[in-house]
Amino acid sequence: MTGNMLIAQSGGPSMVINQSLVGAVLAAKASNKIVEIYGALHGIQGIFDEDFIDLRAEPEEVLLKVAQTPSSALGSVRRKPTSDDCRALFAVLAKRNIRYFFYIGGNDSAETANIIAQEAEAQGYDLRCFHIPKTIDNDLLCNDHTPGYGSAARFVACAVRGDDLDNRALGGVKIDVIMGRNAGFLTAAAALARQDPDDGPHLVYVPERPFTLERFVSDVGECLAKYKRCVVAVSEGIRGEDGRAIAESFSNEVDAHGNVQLTSGALGENLAAVIREKLKVKRVRADTFGFIQRCFVGVASEVDAREARLVGSAAVQAAVGGKYRSGTITMTRLPGASYQIDYSVAPLSAVAKHTRELPDCYINSEGNNVTGLFLDYARPIVGPLPVTARFNQLRGRR
Amino acid sequence: MTGNMLIAQSGGPSMVINQSLVGAVLAAKASNKIVEIYGALHGIQGIFDEDFIDLRAEPEEVLLKVAQTPSSALGSVRRKPTSDDCRALFAVLAKRNIRYFFYIGGNDSAETANIIAQEAEAQGYDLRCFHIPKTIDNDLLCNDHTPGYGSAARFVACAVRGDDLDNRALGGVKIDVIMGRNAGFLTAAAALARQDPDDGPHLVYVPERPFTLERFVSDVGECLAKYKRCVVAVSEGIRGEDGRAIAESFSNEVDAHGNVQLTSGALGENLAAVIREKLKVKRVRADTFGFIQRCFVGVASEVDAREARLVGSAAVQAAVGGKYRSGTITMTRLPGASYQIDYSVAPLSAVAKHTRELPDCYINSEGNNVTGLFLDYARPIVGPLPVTARFNQLRGRR
Repeated sequence: MTGNMLIAQSGGPSMVINQSLVGAVLAAKASNKIVEIYGALHGIQGIFDEDFIDLRAEPEEVLLKVAQTPSSALGSVRRKPTSDDCRALFAVLAKRNIRYFFYIGGNDSAETANIIAQEAEAQGYDLRCFHIPKTIDNDLLCNDHTPGYGSAARFVACAVRGDDLDNRALGGVKIDVIMGRNAGFLTAAAALARQDPDDGPHLVYVPERPFTLERFVSDVGECLAKYKRCVVAVSEGIRGEDGRAIAESFSNEVDAHGNVQLTSGALGENLAAVIREKLKVKRVRADTFGFIQRCFVGVASEVDAREARLVGSAAVQAAVGGKYRSGTITMTRLPGASYQIDYSVAPLSAVAKHTRELPDCYINSEGNNVTGLFLDYARPIVGPLPVTARFNQLRGRR
Repeated sequence: MTGNMLIAQSGGPSMVINQSLVGAVLAAKASNKIVEIYGALHGIQGIFDEDFIDLRAEPEEVLLKVAQTPSSALGSVRRKPTSDDCRALFAVLAKRNIRYFFYIGGNDSAETANIIAQEAEAQGYDLRCFHIPKTIDNDLLCNDHTPGYGSAARFVACAVRGDDLDNRALGGVKIDVIMGRNAGFLTAAAALARQDPDDGPHLVYVPERPFTLERFVSDVGECLAKYKRCVVAVSEGIRGEDGRAIAESFSNEVDAHGNVQLTSGALGENLAAVIREKLKVKRVRADTFGFIQRCFVGVASEVDAREARLVGSAAVQAAVGGKYRSGTITMTRLPGASYQIDYSVAPLSAVAKHTRELPDCYINSEGNNVTGLFLDYARPIVGPLPVTARFNQLRGRR
């Protein structure tokens, strides 16, 4: 089928989501099935508003620079379409003879693509509809990992490596709160910061294991006894034994007292306060890494950038290949000693809505650290960190 | 005078403080006046404890790797010596025939070096005593800028560049809280993120100008009217018209209600709450960049790293040169079109204790942004940022 193409970006940006966009555009330019290449601004919102740009008109040089630029170059949105929405949407697509639609995003975006694909079928609009995976949380099913994760993980690893060195210099306890409401993949990546056995992060807490303050205090106390200092990586989404987010419990506590608005910053501050009080540690600091984890300029993982580009082009190839009417691109790691990824197509329903968590084998039995298996898993995705070193005479010294 | 040398690091770490350490060690190895080269651990604390390492014993390869490693490789301390302390200190120095002492740090460390130099004179201990400047705040007198600033400024610029792109994608108001209790240099560096006229940060608030919530709300409102979004860079140290820190006022408010400990995270959260309430903006987010501003691995400015190395070696050269018994190395920018720095020696008292602020000519008349003069000042210190770009068709579009 020959026709025009529309591509858009959705959900939270990442450092390499534009690589996927440009990968798709370059593949479309190389295909004789695709005529016009439109970009919709702010996801499906741009379709309703007929707010398009002509991606063929952008010079190759600009495309390549945009590819290495963090955040969603076409803008983003968080919106789920209804059947009526889809009717309006297909009217716009029909007007421009758009027959290829690509939506870059996470599981919510896959769900949107799935709704659009099903409604196209039901409403008789002939459309190839594909999802291009992206998520810094790494929580898509059917994927070894997803584009965006490696770069955010690289930011976290570089930040915690530096933070651990900083903590060595001035001592005490440092708590770093890392993104991830439901999946601990990004927090786990903090462990890539380690080189020596006494390097931090010494403790890693993920949402997949229940978190108790008692246990936390005792873990930090043990670490202080052993290393005279302690660096903690903790997911913003850690939950108590009742499944309730710890951050939420702190927030509510404060909300009940006054009108001070607290977001995730409160989790770190409150965990620090607990350590200060219970362990009488003088120097306790907390940082919440925040949005720069997903958009910092200049720290993207090279592997992640390359894979994001390939996923974008794989989606276009699948769409023009004729074998599939819709689908999502999945990344599978091939067995063997060398790192190699296979790109294939799965049904949209396989990744839509659902999320995956950090597998059990990546979390230690105490639930306060990652395993070597996780490090083996994450290292090739994140790539080697910048070289840092300590004096030989200080290595192994407490 | 021939003798042994001792070097130590003090105050908050930076990304390039080890460049200065290694610059000094390499210069000392090249001098025939210096025999042993000791490093004291955790600043002057390591002298009291006689906790030294032998820096001549470290292989050149390790020295060069340590040089590019953030944070203070010898550990740090915040401690000001008394006359009695100095007596104990000189006893240790005499025992090892240490005649050259170098202390790397900010204005407090210069003050410590000054006390030690004066007490050495008074107590008759023959010592060459030099301060090697370091501060991410850039607040030392007598210097165009100080090593450490350029790299922290680069972190801030890269973070805000990415954050501004992120804000373009999802809209709303974003507030970034940046280090700097008294001087706005680091917050000002956020402006280096801009490429296009509508790029953020749209507003920049520094401690040098009084901050009022009314004015802040009106500034953000104007920006939203103009750009439909707003990115704000704000110093953690902004003060009200009464000179009281805004962060402190928020903290106290909460402390009075309960035991929730709030550090700088509260400033951003509370400013966000004010905008949410007064301007009815739905999406308002705040991040506090925290300690990773000074220790992130892999973003050091090349110019800053080079200058930090040179400052370390200049201190040793000044000390063995015989002309000065004590002093600090100062960096002066030479007039002319090309960026060039002259390194010279000033008395310790010239930089000790005192701090400088962002000059008036770097702040706009409204007190909510920096001037082009500031950008010209900071650009060569920070170096070019990684390439990022937007689609041609979207540039200039609101």
